[in-house]
Amino acid sequence: MKKLINRPENVVAESLAGLVAAHSDLLTLSQNPLFVAWKDAPVSGKVGIISGGGSGHEPLHVGYVGRGMLDAACPGDVFTSPTPDQIEAATRAVDSGAGVLHVIKNYTGDVMNFELAAELCQAEGIQVETVLVDDDVAVKDSLYTAGRRGVGATVLVEKICGAAAEQGHKLSAVAAIGKEVNQRTRSIGIALTSCTVPAAGKPTFEIGDQEMEFGIGIHGEPGRSRMQIKTARDVVRMMTEEVVRDLPFQSGDSVIALVNGMGGTPLIELYLVFGEMIEVCREKGINVVRPLVGNYITALEMAGCSITLLKADDRLLTLWDAPVHTAGLRWGR
Amino acid sequence: MKKLINRPENVVAESLAGLVAAHSDLLTLSQNPLFVAWKDAPVSGKVGIISGGGSGHEPLHVGYVGRGMLDAACPGDVFTSPTPDQIEAATRAVDSGAGVLHVIKNYTGDVMNFELAAELCQAEGIQVETVLVDDDVAVKDSLYTAGRRGVGATVLVEKICGAAAEQGHKLSAVAAIGKEVNQRTRSIGIALTSCTVPAAGKPTFEIGDQEMEFGIGIHGEPGRSRMQIKTARDVVRMMTEEVVRDLPFQSGDSVIALVNGMGGTPLIELYLVFGEMIEVCREKGINVVRPLVGNYITALEMAGCSITLLKADDRLLTLWDAPVHTAGLRWGR
Repeated sequence: MKKLINRPENVVAESLAGLVAAHSDLLTLSQNPLFVAWKDAPVSGKVGIISGGGSGHEPLHVGYVGRGMLDAACPGDVFTSPTPDQIEAATRAVDSGAGVLHVIKNYTGDVMNFELAAELCQAEGIQVETVLVDDDVAVKDSLYTAGRRGVGATVLVEKICGAAAEQGHKLSAVAAIGKEVNQRTRSIGIALTSCTVPAAGKPTFEIGDQEMEFGIGIHGEPGRSRMQIKTARDVVRMMTEEVVRDLPFQSGDSVIALVNGMGGTPLIELYLVFGEMIEVCREKGINVVRPLVGNYITALEMAGCSITLLKADDRLLTLWDAPVHTAGLRWGR
Repeated sequence: MKKLINRPENVVAESLAGLVAAHSDLLTLSQNPLFVAWKDAPVSGKVGIISGGGSGHEPLHVGYVGRGMLDAACPGDVFTSPTPDQIEAATRAVDSGAGVLHVIKNYTGDVMNFELAAELCQAEGIQVETVLVDDDVAVKDSLYTAGRRGVGATVLVEKICGAAAEQGHKLSAVAAIGKEVNQRTRSIGIALTSCTVPAAGKPTFEIGDQEMEFGIGIHGEPGRSRMQIKTARDVVRMMTEEVVRDLPFQSGDSVIALVNGMGGTPLIELYLVFGEMIEVCREKGINVVRPLVGNYITALEMAGCSITLLKADDRLLTLWDAPVHTAGLRWGR
């Protein structure tokens, strides 16, 4: 296992310490229970937004805490759900009285623990609403999930809900926008290599030198099929067509497109993938009006990428364009 | 070779096409000769700034073209210098009459081709000044370089010179600031794995499962020594101490610190490295006043990182904080 770490059991705590030290103008760290919060939260009258999940997907979620996105994030251990007490404490910490939205990726453990935390918070008189993200078209029901997995759409839901909350929308409205974003978004991912969970010390799966996994999840869980490596052009066409067919996206649609690296694929390849994707979109009459290319929801050091398309309208684009200032996503200020 | 590419010989052109498509609000692509330019260049009265070098270090340099940083960048093939005609054409394209600064990483091929291009431009009546970046403390004279190699300081020189040009400084002043930044900056890098140049199709170097390369260059060229992998704490202490000792940085110094990923190391590890680095700095009385953590000057998909410290003063911090809008670095607008 070749990693820049000390002891596997301390990776998450030590990485969070570095994150918060690097962004001390923006973030505070609660140690017990563990969560990262925006320094300015709670903002009077503003809906709070929190998310969380296993670590290993950085910058998601802790890197999206700040102005115009998340008020707090609850990191679990690597690929392990956060506990209800983390989520409850974070919810309490960011509630201004306007209520708190929970953005949850659809994994069984996350869903269960967020539900339990929401019940605890509601018993304390905090309004909680939930957006469940399940945009992955690769598989229905899998290793960690009943239904579809939540992947790239999470970044878009967090950004757009964050902007809606910042603009003063009520909890029910912010939740409705988040659900709408999820419903309008589809994703698929592929991997060329496995990742290695620090505590496991060996690759999550074996994959041959000439093989790729099509439809991979963000924990290295199996996708739709194992196949021979293809050219980027062929891979990206397959990926884009799966995504387009599923919603379906149609000629004339405007989309926000995320070409996301899984952690070990360099930017030179991700931009090449973006170039191939936009060609397929063009053929189909789909207009990519907002692109995002880089490592935004990763699986440790896995080599691979995912493609996410969101069918946008003017309202969603305005929310997308609104200023954001987090460690992982920043524009407009 | 597991890469998301089509044909090795087309990687650079296809990646650039994707980059410019993704950032069409910001960038234009000249095909022949090849360079990427900021759409607004030349800006009347503003000094132009260009850089260039082999591809494979993305976002450097093409990702730093835009407002407040580079006016153009000339990409060579992977790990191969750009040609004088690329540099000459880019220089001409961005000269407003106020002259053009060439930011050059100290590699023999780059230096030679930029020098030749500068002579051609000067013969045409364009004022050209040069900043040579040579911040790598690992080795003096190496595979591609006479003297020290230029690495992480390049990002800092490009950002700070870009801000100085934007603020209306003259060519001689912008060049002087760039040289000063280089003189006040030191870096060192390590690698856990090799990278694979697409055209070569096999790893640049062999490295054992328990080995790391200390003092690696950004092309996978040898560093100072091959050693057993250590904990992040031990590695980062060695790295930071080499950097601090060289300038030397002293107690009471304020620094801009770049913890840079080589391409294949995920953010969870880079933040852990930052946390370790800041501890060593604290012990030595060095204050990290501006942190930057992520993949900023890479070596394809190599796993590893580099640490760069710049001894800052108020004037340099003001230039650092000035707004920048590029594909790879963005804040303040």
